[in-house]
Amino acid sequence: MDIETPALVVDLDRLTDNVERMTDRVGQRGLALRPHAKTHKSVEIARMQLDAGAAGLTVATLSEAEVFADSGLSDLFIAYPVFPRGPKADRLRRLLDRVDLSVGIDNPAGAAAVADAAAGRSVRVVLEIDSGQHRTGVAPAQAADLARWCSELGLQVVGVFTHGGHSYKDPGAPSGASVDEGDTLVQAHHTLSAAGFDVSVVSAGSTPTTGVERPPEVTEERPGSYVFYDRQQLALGACRREQLALTVAATVVSVRHDRFVVDAGSKALASDRPPWLEGHGWVPELGDAVVTALSEHHGIVEGAPALPSVGDVVAVVPNHVCTVVNLFDEYVVARAGHVVDRWPVSARGRNT
Amino acid sequence: MDIETPALVVDLDRLTDNVERMTDRVGQRGLALRPHAKTHKSVEIARMQLDAGAAGLTVATLSEAEVFADSGLSDLFIAYPVFPRGPKADRLRRLLDRVDLSVGIDNPAGAAAVADAAAGRSVRVVLEIDSGQHRTGVAPAQAADLARWCSELGLQVVGVFTHGGHSYKDPGAPSGASVDEGDTLVQAHHTLSAAGFDVSVVSAGSTPTTGVERPPEVTEERPGSYVFYDRQQLALGACRREQLALTVAATVVSVRHDRFVVDAGSKALASDRPPWLEGHGWVPELGDAVVTALSEHHGIVEGAPALPSVGDVVAVVPNHVCTVVNLFDEYVVARAGHVVDRWPVSARGRNT
Repeated sequence: MDIETPALVVDLDRLTDNVERMTDRVGQRGLALRPHAKTHKSVEIARMQLDAGAAGLTVATLSEAEVFADSGLSDLFIAYPVFPRGPKADRLRRLLDRVDLSVGIDNPAGAAAVADAAAGRSVRVVLEIDSGQHRTGVAPAQAADLARWCSELGLQVVGVFTHGGHSYKDPGAPSGASVDEGDTLVQAHHTLSAAGFDVSVVSAGSTPTTGVERPPEVTEERPGSYVFYDRQQLALGACRREQLALTVAATVVSVRHDRFVVDAGSKALASDRPPWLEGHGWVPELGDAVVTALSEHHGIVEGAPALPSVGDVVAVVPNHVCTVVNLFDEYVVARAGHVVDRWPVSARGRNT
Repeated sequence: MDIETPALVVDLDRLTDNVERMTDRVGQRGLALRPHAKTHKSVEIARMQLDAGAAGLTVATLSEAEVFADSGLSDLFIAYPVFPRGPKADRLRRLLDRVDLSVGIDNPAGAAAVADAAAGRSVRVVLEIDSGQHRTGVAPAQAADLARWCSELGLQVVGVFTHGGHSYKDPGAPSGASVDEGDTLVQAHHTLSAAGFDVSVVSAGSTPTTGVERPPEVTEERPGSYVFYDRQQLALGACRREQLALTVAATVVSVRHDRFVVDAGSKALASDRPPWLEGHGWVPELGDAVVTALSEHHGIVEGAPALPSVGDVVAVVPNHVCTVVNLFDEYVVARAGHVVDRWPVSARGRNT
């Protein structure tokens, strides 16, 4: 492939397969799939997901929502405790006027800011519940109070969501985190129902916890990384090697006796690394070769059974696709080793 | 300041002061300053550096060189073992036709690719010498062989450069790395001179090792991060707190009993973290408060003596400015707490 490195290369067949498999898997459980588009930030991939049967999209920011809204994708959930003020309040209001939008809430001040920004418009809010990651979200027992506050502000409470992010704690964590998500959502559902709320959305989500049997109260899954998977997902048991659909193509620029350097560093591979994973990327075509150190434009690769030559291009499986995609302006779309298309990373950098 | 978060905020007075001080410091040693523009990727800041007295710019990639060339900045050194082929060879050729360009070389295949790409044009090459980081670069004793090879290819060998990147190994490392840079460059200089080469460029560079007395053979310094400094540079003793010129403005979106969450995560603060530094950012206005964990859009801050409120905006000093800048499209330029300008991050994502 005659591409300039470092490049973001997506394997179209694997991507298609990942999208279809997850749609089927979630559908077979009777759940709606609302994939998190922060992973791919791509209108093309969002369309693939919706065409395959996704109910709508999850996004992380107002500006991601704007990008998808501009492309006519209109059922969006901002799974984040938004705090709209000033220009962000104006932007939220404009989004409410043109798409079917829900927003996350985890505290009274955020709810008040959303209500202020909406200026009388109907806003569907989904309360964030903490299922064990202890990042954002309220305890299930607090959900009724927060829901009542939202109602007083004129917001329409439609349900609850959680992100079992503690599934990433270590390779043994996903199954427990998945149970935690279900248990916590059930508690929150019961609390809200008992307080008289009509709970239509009960949403769980993280790629490692998705696809298992859920309690009947759960209505929706929000995985993101499954479109590509990555080295971290592989180590967590969330995918097989043959499902890895995204690599960073890198050129070997220097070789030593025991290792070599590629032109993909932290500005191409990102520096995300869970404590239980060694290194910053894997080069499958070279056995167990791993990117052991990163500078901004250098990736040092060790462990190759035979060293490549300067000028060779290798494919690096990154640790975490979401932050890698955000570093590139376009996808090089490949099928059977040939470039078949280029897609913009439409929402690259749209993180406000 | 009415800005949408997360935002990249540069303190103009501190930036100006950092630029002037480093220019003076290096100038007083009788050395040329060729700052590395990969840190700021900004035409405005590059102009400040040149106006203050920098001899030219260092860049990491062809595409960074193109951005500065497009803005009329014409003395550029690509301090990287470039391997131009296909479209990159065309781009190198076009750059040679319009700017005063030098390129790094650390191996025979790279040299051959540069010579091929140049297609008969004169190219000034600077040989990379390994002074102890063991990333790229040859040993001083190998410099003559590589220089002869370059000459046979028609390349014009003008000198040697090194990056004492092992200055980042731990807070005690910079002084030793600085000595290593000097010693190694002197050896390489003597080797090349003895082999009959006219060595006019002897270039060292990393912010923590810059500003010390150098052996008389050294001609140039190439620091980058000093324009802003960062949490890592502060811990290395390369700056004082009052010199920190770049922060990420972030809004508090959720508060718990002992910590809070801001809307700057790994897509705003990057995940770079040296092993000797805990956490992912520092919030100076809140004592020793540190970003202890990152998700893509969440930064968890712990250690604040008093918790802020949801909606408050805080300034986070990132661990490593270079990768942070590359995540944003613009600088919010502030002076005394007021926004006075906005500058594009002109070479954002220009990493090929």
